[in-house]
Amino acid sequence: MKQNIFIMNLLYDFYGSLLTDKQREIFEMHYLNDYSLGEISQILNISRQGVYDTLKRAEISLQFFEDKLSLVKKHKQLTEKIEEIKKLLDNIRLSTEDDRILKITDEIFAKLLELNP
Amino acid sequence: MKQNIFIMNLLYDFYGSLLTDKQREIFEMHYLNDYSLGEISQILNISRQGVYDTLKRAEISLQFFEDKLSLVKKHKQLTEKIEEIKKLLDNIRLSTEDDRILKITDEIFAKLLELNP
Repeated sequence: MKQNIFIMNLLYDFYGSLLTDKQREIFEMHYLNDYSLGEISQILNISRQGVYDTLKRAEISLQFFEDKLSLVKKHKQLTEKIEEIKKLLDNIRLSTEDDRILKITDEIFAKLLELNP
Repeated sequence: MKQNIFIMNLLYDFYGSLLTDKQREIFEMHYLNDYSLGEISQILNISRQGVYDTLKRAEISLQFFEDKLSLVKKHKQLTEKIEEIKKLLDNIRLSTEDDRILKITDEIFAKLLELNP
């Protein structure tokens, strides 16, 4: 039943806020805390089918939002571009001993970290 | 009736894909093409109240998604940080005549453009 845990957690990071409280609760029990459907059913006192349906709807919603907004994909692209910029900054640092320039590259590195926390 | 056009268009840029086809059609007629509710009602052959309700639901949805995901706010912050990095790069350019370094700053400027198209 469990979908790819890594992908589901990633989608949840980006779109979890759009799920209902109940979907979030069950999603977190299953994907973050590794409870089985049966265990969740017992703990929340709802049917196993009810747990399954809620989880399924949550997974479908998360994928729907990614299909529409592509935030995970865009975040990956942003991360890659930032890495490319860091490499270019390293090249500047290797090309100079000028303290002013080295200090500015430090500041740019710090700003890049803020871009993609 | 019409909400702040600038804000609505901005929200639509980010979340329009999450609206229904009908919401998108009426939203675009009203906010992008400046048709009145009465005109839209005539053109689509639905009641003025129906147009109003659909538009209202679209506006509420767009604001709901921004409240949950803050993409407009985050995009603004990204743009500001990129501008700060551009200024720092300009400072590097003013500090050197080394062609290698100038060339690398050009490449970083180009990458920054890709970050925030």
